[in-house]
Amino acid sequence: MLSFFEPIKKELAFVEKETIKRLRNSVSLISDIGIHISKSGGKRLRPALVLLSSKLCGYKGDRSIHLACAVEFIHTATLLHDDVVDEADIRRGTPSANSKWGSKASILVGDYLFSGSFSIMVSDKDLRIMESLAKASVKMAEGEILQLSKHYDTTISKECYIDIITKKTAELISSCCKTGAILANVDEEKTEALASYGKNIGIAFQLVDDTLDFIANREKLGKPLGNDLREGKVTMPLLRAIEGESKENRDRIKQILCLPGLDGEGLSFIFDLIRRHKGVEYSLDMAFNYSKNAKKDLDLFPPTREKELLLELADYIVKRDH
Amino acid sequence: MLSFFEPIKKELAFVEKETIKRLRNSVSLISDIGIHISKSGGKRLRPALVLLSSKLCGYKGDRSIHLACAVEFIHTATLLHDDVVDEADIRRGTPSANSKWGSKASILVGDYLFSGSFSIMVSDKDLRIMESLAKASVKMAEGEILQLSKHYDTTISKECYIDIITKKTAELISSCCKTGAILANVDEEKTEALASYGKNIGIAFQLVDDTLDFIANREKLGKPLGNDLREGKVTMPLLRAIEGESKENRDRIKQILCLPGLDGEGLSFIFDLIRRHKGVEYSLDMAFNYSKNAKKDLDLFPPTREKELLLELADYIVKRDH
Repeated sequence: MLSFFEPIKKELAFVEKETIKRLRNSVSLISDIGIHISKSGGKRLRPALVLLSSKLCGYKGDRSIHLACAVEFIHTATLLHDDVVDEADIRRGTPSANSKWGSKASILVGDYLFSGSFSIMVSDKDLRIMESLAKASVKMAEGEILQLSKHYDTTISKECYIDIITKKTAELISSCCKTGAILANVDEEKTEALASYGKNIGIAFQLVDDTLDFIANREKLGKPLGNDLREGKVTMPLLRAIEGESKENRDRIKQILCLPGLDGEGLSFIFDLIRRHKGVEYSLDMAFNYSKNAKKDLDLFPPTREKELLLELADYIVKRDH
Repeated sequence: MLSFFEPIKKELAFVEKETIKRLRNSVSLISDIGIHISKSGGKRLRPALVLLSSKLCGYKGDRSIHLACAVEFIHTATLLHDDVVDEADIRRGTPSANSKWGSKASILVGDYLFSGSFSIMVSDKDLRIMESLAKASVKMAEGEILQLSKHYDTTISKECYIDIITKKTAELISSCCKTGAILANVDEEKTEALASYGKNIGIAFQLVDDTLDFIANREKLGKPLGNDLREGKVTMPLLRAIEGESKENRDRIKQILCLPGLDGEGLSFIFDLIRRHKGVEYSLDMAFNYSKNAKKDLDLFPPTREKELLLELADYIVKRDH
């Protein structure tokens, strides 16, 4: 849990309890992997947003707990699959599920969690929420596939990059906020405002996340620097740097990225380039703008503790260093 | 399409058209992989069962087309993931998606199809159908994980094997039949009878499928014999053979199975053992019994063309040679 979510830690503890309960299974591989990930200290951003958004809109029941659990299941499923796709050995500073139990188990437990989240939503019976989360899941997969198809591609536009991160990250976060609004049955304007808030912080979140690959405190981040580059992910800091670069250097970058196991010299060259072109600063500025827009989205809500938290969250997201 | 489904080929063509339409995507990797699999000649068993069951129960609308598309999406998603898990190079006699586009793309397009199926179901708005298909999807993933956790395990019981194939194969087939019944809004008795029919033919189908690994016409099957054994899958013919075998031979089998790239001699030893103990005949007898029960499940339906087809299908399933 983000320390930031301290004020709603009781509700988040309910979500965790419910999650663990649902993960208990006679097939021990399911319980083992599910509980390993669940306990490995995620940020709980998505379930927290379901809880905070629903409370912001005046919802008081416990459906938010179950739906928070459903979105965490979706998120966890994608983490499991992403780690297989990225061949990641480390997740949140500890061995990833695929390195511990193998990629086969990770793929199948991901499928189990994904089906499980659908099951929870169906039990909740709200078609609008299901529609929103189903659409977000489709977009998420689309974003991941788009990203994969653009691996090592240094010719993608900044718009294409924003499209990728909107789909793969921001759509689900947006849907979490929208879920809260639908739970409370507020009007269309407020529902869309919360969906927009979620999309904006989602894009800001991923922009910042992608800069951390270049500047983070390695230990706090829990994975090595330059990881995205090694996987062929061309993100905003590099795109910004390439924008102003000669054709010769752009070609060199492509060649460097495509080398298996990006080496020290190649990595230094790219890091230098990004530094010279202030690629990280540019990305963070952009993230800052999305965060500002997210805060504006909340204008039509009266001042409450939840509004305050969501406003602070928008600030926090662009300031985090891991 | 199974030649067997000739009488409903017009409806199945609608399903295929709808499937292709839904697979068209600006992200070309989605269209390419989706359409490759969709056109690679699947049996269309699951969509056909949605169509036939709904017609058997008197349903006349076009929701069955969309739901048939949804179940084919679920099935295709699991095929994509199974091929990655099994490291299969061949599917239906042609290169598998993972060998053509890589396992990363297969994982993500599987996720896309799975989310897509959820989206179709949500658009259809029927909570009972969603509940049934969601539960089936959860069971399916459970079955796959259980199977994975029992790889190379020659100590599993026959009951455990039946549990695995019920979950990984029969539950979805059962849910397809139940979907047809729910569409037509028939009574609980008929709904459960169709669900039971589906479960019975599903188990029979997988029992037969698993014997084909030992006896099939290799060209018709489109994959090499002994494939399941190489992947560590201990199926009924082998379980039957082990049942009557000395401890020495049982240990030897375990050792042989665990050898990377099961060799000619080891494979022959196991094939001989199964032949001696009539493991294949035993499995086919069992499949025959499930098929008989499936036919009994249809007793309460009046004679119609659809009933005739479903009865013939139960026979066909235990007679097929690929």
